[in-house]
Amino acid sequence: MNPSTLPAASAGADASLAGYSIDMGAERPLRLDCGVDLGPFTIAYQTHGRLNPEKSNAILICHALSGDQFVYAPHPITNKPGWWHMLVGPGRVLDTDRFFLICANVLGGCMGTTGPKEINPATGRSWGLSFPAITIGDMVRAQAMLLDYLGIDQLFCVIGGSMGGMQVLQWAALYPERVFAAIPIASSSRHSAQNIAFYEVGRQAIMADPDWCGGDYLAQGKNPHRGLAVARMAAHITYLSEMALDRKFGRARQDRKQFTPGFDAEFQVESYLRHQGSTFVDRFDANSYLYISRAMDYFDLAAEHDGVLANAFKGTKTRFCIISFSSDWLFPTSANRAVVHALNAAAANVSFVEVESDKGHDAFLLDEPEFQATLMGFLNGAAEHRGLPRSTTP
Amino acid sequence: MNPSTLPAASAGADASLAGYSIDMGAERPLRLDCGVDLGPFTIAYQTHGRLNPEKSNAILICHALSGDQFVYAPHPITNKPGWWHMLVGPGRVLDTDRFFLICANVLGGCMGTTGPKEINPATGRSWGLSFPAITIGDMVRAQAMLLDYLGIDQLFCVIGGSMGGMQVLQWAALYPERVFAAIPIASSSRHSAQNIAFYEVGRQAIMADPDWCGGDYLAQGKNPHRGLAVARMAAHITYLSEMALDRKFGRARQDRKQFTPGFDAEFQVESYLRHQGSTFVDRFDANSYLYISRAMDYFDLAAEHDGVLANAFKGTKTRFCIISFSSDWLFPTSANRAVVHALNAAAANVSFVEVESDKGHDAFLLDEPEFQATLMGFLNGAAEHRGLPRSTTP
Repeated sequence: MNPSTLPAASAGADASLAGYSIDMGAERPLRLDCGVDLGPFTIAYQTHGRLNPEKSNAILICHALSGDQFVYAPHPITNKPGWWHMLVGPGRVLDTDRFFLICANVLGGCMGTTGPKEINPATGRSWGLSFPAITIGDMVRAQAMLLDYLGIDQLFCVIGGSMGGMQVLQWAALYPERVFAAIPIASSSRHSAQNIAFYEVGRQAIMADPDWCGGDYLAQGKNPHRGLAVARMAAHITYLSEMALDRKFGRARQDRKQFTPGFDAEFQVESYLRHQGSTFVDRFDANSYLYISRAMDYFDLAAEHDGVLANAFKGTKTRFCIISFSSDWLFPTSANRAVVHALNAAAANVSFVEVESDKGHDAFLLDEPEFQATLMGFLNGAAEHRGLPRSTTP
Repeated sequence: MNPSTLPAASAGADASLAGYSIDMGAERPLRLDCGVDLGPFTIAYQTHGRLNPEKSNAILICHALSGDQFVYAPHPITNKPGWWHMLVGPGRVLDTDRFFLICANVLGGCMGTTGPKEINPATGRSWGLSFPAITIGDMVRAQAMLLDYLGIDQLFCVIGGSMGGMQVLQWAALYPERVFAAIPIASSSRHSAQNIAFYEVGRQAIMADPDWCGGDYLAQGKNPHRGLAVARMAAHITYLSEMALDRKFGRARQDRKQFTPGFDAEFQVESYLRHQGSTFVDRFDANSYLYISRAMDYFDLAAEHDGVLANAFKGTKTRFCIISFSSDWLFPTSANRAVVHALNAAAANVSFVEVESDKGHDAFLLDEPEFQATLMGFLNGAAEHRGLPRSTTP
C-alpha cells in the first residue's frame, strides 16, 4: 500500500468534512475475483465527523449503483446535496457528532476511484473495456484496504442500500470480526433473473449507442450519452413503485396540445424520466455503468458458500438490522427476508423491519420517518453495546 | 369506401384461410381523433372459417402492440405459426368449423395496413413522422369500416389481449349494438403512469438510435434496429412475471467462462432477451412501434365519458367476459377488475375470471388450460344465446 494520501477536495467551512483519494496496491496488489492483480489503484472517499481515540466509532457507508462518495457534502458536479444528506449530520441518524463516517467510491466507479474511465498506468490510456471484471467482493476488499490504511480494525457499523446493501452483506461474510453491526437496506443476497434482465436492457442501450465505440469512446472523444440516458430511464422505473408513479404523475399531461407528431414528452411521467436520464449522463460514466451493474449481476453470496446462504454467516457475532420497503419490487421484502432466514439459521443477532411505504425501492433515499426511526433505534442500541455515547438529541 | 378487394396472400392448401388487403376511405375518409381525415387507406387482414348465411358467426380478433393479422396462418416473415395458433383451428376455442374469424392489422401497423412505413399517396414518399397520431378509437373505427365492407352488422364476438383488449373495450363502448359478446383479456381501460414510463423508455431507445434519422430512416436507407431491439427487450421483461423468469432462467449461465470483458450475454436470461430483440426487428417497423405504443398511452376510456368508466357501457346489452392473469403486473388483475366494477355499475352482463398463472402478461399467448377452458365455456354459452350451433367436440 502506498502511504501517500492526496487531499482531493476541501469541504469548505466545515472542517469535519473531508474528501481524499489514496493510492494503494502498488506493493501488494488487490487480487480480483477474476484472477487479475490490480495495483496501483486509487480509492476516492469522503469522511465526516471525527474518529475517536479508540477508533471504535467508524461507520462505513456503501453506495448504490448510481451513487458515489458524496453522501453528505454537495456533489461536485451537480452541486446537489449528498445522496443521504437527510440521514447525515449533527444529531441526525448518522450523527457526525458521534460517528466517524466513511464513504468511498466503489472500485469500477467514476468519481475518482479506479475504474474504466481512469488511466491504466501500464498503458497511459483509459482502461475502457480492458478494465478487469469486478465483483461486490472486490469492492469490499478494496474498502478493507482503505480501512487498513486508516488504522481501523473494526467498524462500528457498515450500512448501505441496494448495491450498498450487497456490500454490507459481503462485508459481514468476508470480515465478520471487523463488523460490529451491519445494516443492509432494500437489498438481496443475489440478483434475480428479472434484476439481471433489467440491467441487461440498460447495458444493451449503452452498447447500442454508436458513440460507445466498443467501449473506447474516451479515446475517440465521444460519449454514449443517449444510450446511458436510456439505461438510466429503464432503471429508474424499477426504483419507483407503480403507486408512487401514479400518485406523482398519474396520466397528467404537460401543458401542451394533446397530439404531437414528434413524440415529445407529453405526459409528465415522460418528462420526469427524460430529466432523470439527461442529468445522469453529466455525472456518470457509461463503462462504469456496465462494470458496476455487472458486479451486481454476479453477486450471489450463497453460491460462494456451497449454495447455503447461512454458511456465509456461520458463527458471526455481528448485530444485523435488515430493512425492506413494502412497495419495493426490485429488491422485494421476500429477498430481504431470505437473508433474515439465513441469519436466523446461523443463529445470528438479527432484527428485521419491513417499512410500510409506497415509494418503492427509492424509499431508502427519501425522507421516510419509520425508516429513520428504525435506523436510530438500532444504532442507539448497538452503540450502547459497543460502549459508545448515546445520542445527545432526544 | 373503395370496393376493390385485393387478395394479398393465399393460404395454401386450406381454402378457409385467406389474406386480403382492402383500400378504403377514398370517398368517405376516416376522421381520426387528432382531427385529420385519413383516406384512402389500406387495411390488411386475414380470415379463417366461413361466414354463415345469417352473418352471425363472425369473431373479430384484435391484436396486441407487437402482433399482427397472422393469428393462425404462419407469419410470412418469420414462418412461425400464428400468434394464437393454439386457440384457433377446427375444434379449438376459436373454432374455424363454427366461426368466421377476422383479424386485421391495426391502423399504424406495419404488415400491410396503412402506417408510417407505407407510402403517403399525397406525396409519394413514406409517411414517417408525417403520419398522423392515431388512437385505439381510430383503430376500431377503421375495423368497423372493414366490417361494413364485409357486410357484417353485428359481430358475434370481439376478443383480444393487452392492446387487443383495449380495442375490445373501445368496440363495446363505440358500437354496443354491433358487439354481441366481448372478451377483453389482460387489459385495462387506461395506461397507468408505469405503463407509459415503460413505453417511453422504448420510444427513447428508438429515437436515440442515430439510424432513426428523425423518423426518416426509410427514405435514407437506414433502420434503427438497435434502438428497436432495446425497446423490445425492455417491453419483453414487462410481459413476463418475475417467477416465470426465475423458473425459466434463474441465474443459469451460458456455457462459457465466468468473467467476460466484452459484456457478451453471460446469463441465459440475457441471451433470451437479446434473441427477443433481434428477431423482433426483422418483422416490425420502428415508427409503427412509436405510433402504436403512443396510441396505448392515449387510451383512457373513462376520460372519453366524463371521467366515469361506467358511462362507457351505459345500457349495453353486450355479454362481457373479463379475464386477467394472477401474475400479470403490466395489466394486473386490479386494472381488469376496475373494468368489471364499471360494467357492474352499468348493470352489464359480465363474467370475470382471474386465471391462476405464474407466466405474467404473456400468459394470454401461451397454452394455459384454465384460460382456454374459460374461453370455451363463455363462447359456448354466448353461442347458445346467439342461436349458433354448439361445438361438435366434446
